[in-house]
Amino acid sequence: MNSPKANLEEPRLVLRRVVIESLQPEIDGGKYPIKRTVGERVVVEADIHADGHDVLSAVVLYRRDQEGAWREAAMRPLANDRWQGQFDVESLGSYFYTVQAWVDAFQTWGRDTLKKFEAGQEISVAALLGAQLVQSAATRTRGTDSQKLTQFSVELKSLSRAGGEAIATLARNAELAALMGRHADRSRATTYDKLLAISVDREKARYSTWYEMFPRSCATDAKKRGTFRDCIQRLGYVSEMGFDVLYFPPIHPIGHTQRKGRNNTPRPSPDDPGSPWAIGADEGGHTAIHPFKQLQSKARGLGIEIALDIAFQCSPDHPYVKEHKEWFLQRPDGSVQYAENPPKKYEDIYPFYFESEDAAKLCEELKRIVLYWIEQGVRIFRVDNPHTKPFDFWEWLIAGLRREYPEVIFLSEAFTRPKVMHRLAKLGFAQSYTYFAWKNTKWELTEYFTELTQTPVREFMRPNVWPNTPDILTEYLQYGGRPAFMARLILAATLSANGITPRQ
Amino acid sequence: MNSPKANLEEPRLVLRRVVIESLQPEIDGGKYPIKRTVGERVVVEADIHADGHDVLSAVVLYRRDQEGAWREAAMRPLANDRWQGQFDVESLGSYFYTVQAWVDAFQTWGRDTLKKFEAGQEISVAALLGAQLVQSAATRTRGTDSQKLTQFSVELKSLSRAGGEAIATLARNAELAALMGRHADRSRATTYDKLLAISVDREKARYSTWYEMFPRSCATDAKKRGTFRDCIQRLGYVSEMGFDVLYFPPIHPIGHTQRKGRNNTPRPSPDDPGSPWAIGADEGGHTAIHPFKQLQSKARGLGIEIALDIAFQCSPDHPYVKEHKEWFLQRPDGSVQYAENPPKKYEDIYPFYFESEDAAKLCEELKRIVLYWIEQGVRIFRVDNPHTKPFDFWEWLIAGLRREYPEVIFLSEAFTRPKVMHRLAKLGFAQSYTYFAWKNTKWELTEYFTELTQTPVREFMRPNVWPNTPDILTEYLQYGGRPAFMARLILAATLSANGITPRQ
Repeated sequence: MNSPKANLEEPRLVLRRVVIESLQPEIDGGKYPIKRTVGERVVVEADIHADGHDVLSAVVLYRRDQEGAWREAAMRPLANDRWQGQFDVESLGSYFYTVQAWVDAFQTWGRDTLKKFEAGQEISVAALLGAQLVQSAATRTRGTDSQKLTQFSVELKSLSRAGGEAIATLARNAELAALMGRHADRSRATTYDKLLAISVDREKARYSTWYEMFPRSCATDAKKRGTFRDCIQRLGYVSEMGFDVLYFPPIHPIGHTQRKGRNNTPRPSPDDPGSPWAIGADEGGHTAIHPFKQLQSKARGLGIEIALDIAFQCSPDHPYVKEHKEWFLQRPDGSVQYAENPPKKYEDIYPFYFESEDAAKLCEELKRIVLYWIEQGVRIFRVDNPHTKPFDFWEWLIAGLRREYPEVIFLSEAFTRPKVMHRLAKLGFAQSYTYFAWKNTKWELTEYFTELTQTPVREFMRPNVWPNTPDILTEYLQYGGRPAFMARLILAATLSANGITPRQ
Repeated sequence: MNSPKANLEEPRLVLRRVVIESLQPEIDGGKYPIKRTVGERVVVEADIHADGHDVLSAVVLYRRDQEGAWREAAMRPLANDRWQGQFDVESLGSYFYTVQAWVDAFQTWGRDTLKKFEAGQEISVAALLGAQLVQSAATRTRGTDSQKLTQFSVELKSLSRAGGEAIATLARNAELAALMGRHADRSRATTYDKLLAISVDREKARYSTWYEMFPRSCATDAKKRGTFRDCIQRLGYVSEMGFDVLYFPPIHPIGHTQRKGRNNTPRPSPDDPGSPWAIGADEGGHTAIHPFKQLQSKARGLGIEIALDIAFQCSPDHPYVKEHKEWFLQRPDGSVQYAENPPKKYEDIYPFYFESEDAAKLCEELKRIVLYWIEQGVRIFRVDNPHTKPFDFWEWLIAGLRREYPEVIFLSEAFTRPKVMHRLAKLGFAQSYTYFAWKNTKWELTEYFTELTQTPVREFMRPNVWPNTPDILTEYLQYGGRPAFMARLILAATLSANGITPRQ
């Protein structure tokens, strides 16, 4: 088995007094990054405490990438030993953050000295102790700050004979407090033991409005099949409604073997175009398409970005089936295993076999497909059924691509169990399909969107709320008529910053 | 600063399909062990899921110490991808546990084959596939199991021409299922990435009844001071009430400097014995005491174990103050810093200075004190104010001592903020003082004991519920008279398995 790690470290006697624990946000113990878009805020909280009654200070440490300069944001105590600090992320890519805290000897001195003074106690020895602390800070810096600190130290020492009122006044001095804050003794500071990552996307990952279009249905003449040229004609219409992402189902050659007809019948008429998700025929596979540069450029001019569908599966006629038999599961009778979920059969689809000995090469080829489309200018991908391919594959694919193209956005089309959907969001999908389509009553909607926006799920999963999809048309929409579609449109537009209103 | 670790691992393309996450119980990401006593049960839960729809199998792996043989407990799915398994710990010391899960190809085959059969589909190719899986299991083992598996494989293969009913019958065969379960293909199993620890105490850590006794108050003649001989006289009385732990406040020489008188007056009369927590005088320090072997042996005979008080602080007359000036904080005027919480002063007490350069030697000496008492036969220690000494010190001390003496029990006397009390319990204290004394209404008691017994706190903090202590006498007891004491006794005895009824 792979070797899990136990915490077998001999407890070391380092005597760092401050403890930092229960840091939030932190996904799966730091295994996955939290998500933000450029300009968004990161609010960090942690339990911070130490033995005894000393005053503590704490900061959030953060930086861009692994090499950026460390920056600091002061934390303030809330209640019950919980502290909070915050900062904004300013650019695309990765940020890292952690928390540092220390026993603040000078603040402790100030608090205790004033308490003693207010209780009428002698504070001349306290003044000498304060002078020591300030002089020690003077040696930790240079220039003006150091000179000022030395002056304050000399003054405190001389005041030790002058009486309490003068000492207390200096203990309350704001300039001295600021100087001591800047040059605190952090030699025994505790730094939280994990550096946590932030994956920073562009704004569209958080706020986008999707329109799904089947090119075949875009012809002005209902008897003809639409082309990309017909799509171009519809761009103005789409743009006027305020959409900024135009999503195409797979636009690759469709297989002929076991082609599906209308309403999922297994016997198509010769005219039936087949399911666009049965990808691959003699004309080619996942990178074959008539050029759509003109469409892209027109769309861009109207503020619309094109999103493509990544469906990693093949029609039996896909070139891979002949060229890479090893990427598909062979049945004992020599045939290729088609997709099935017994007793359901999808004989027009061959899934890839990720448990094959050659899986690494298969994964490299699939990455090449995505790279091909990135090179064609596509930066948004809607991924079909990601939950039927290994999580490891997606994590490797997305991390690898985002190192070079941090602006790429992947939408996870997983309608499955909640923990599987969460895992896909954690491992790198910028947006996720949700259960929104099936939530109808006020109670259901409130409960579900509270979960999506008020629990730790919000740190890694961005909902993209589609009222329906080509294969999901809920009872509510089937029987509700136009008012039902209008209700779902308004809900989609107001409950999340990512949504779609596909054309009927 | 110390270097926090980021998860900077390049995502590897290992394609292990099963994910194991949100394992419980797990304290602070595995940093601290959970607590059990000998014979107690450990119920382990985890979210376990994979891509696709295959059937999974999972086990809890556990062992005694680092070298013990691995044992397994089968897990079963609950709901929502949550799985559960359990085992009992059988001996004192450390146990370790983790979870392993895999895609179960044979169970998947059985489920899908039966679904197809029930839907009237052809399953002759499925029979061939099943035969392959069974034959492959035969090669993973030897002897009878291997022979039986080979027979089943041959039978399945031959049945592929016999028709569905016969194949389905074999797919339901319990003996075949058991064999395939024993010899599942785990070559691509996922093991949870942490090995979690259990600290196993003896039963008394979980269930004990404490009696606190001041030897000075045990004389039969009220005008005299009690001795250990007087204590022996009272053992029968204590035993008859059912107590099994007899706890002594510090029994060391008491200092004379700044000795406290009755009711905390700063001017004692010459007869006042002083606070037993002002430890140390010319006669000696933390290991000085008149022999109490006889007392121990009599107590043991009555089923009573003696618990001593560990109060790591000194009277100004303690030998350490002269011999180890460096273990105390010197004030700028040359005097030693006494304990204070401004404006309160405790001039009869000098705290140790754990931030001194010589702190490591100080810690070694304090460990020597505990070891001395362990060598005198003491195995239970009530630790005074642990929250005013560094957490690191306690963690190091307790872990070090328990390696050789796993039967030692430490009780944390920390009445402070909740997260500080939790941390002390996590790092090794077997029992903890609680807020019980201040919880009076039904709502308060219900809410607090729900937290102690129904939240993750239960995995590391064992409450020891004292109705009062020498320095805590709540308003309820001050004004409630005998009925109030009776009520608190019954509550203490029934709300937790560790409690005390100190004599009034």
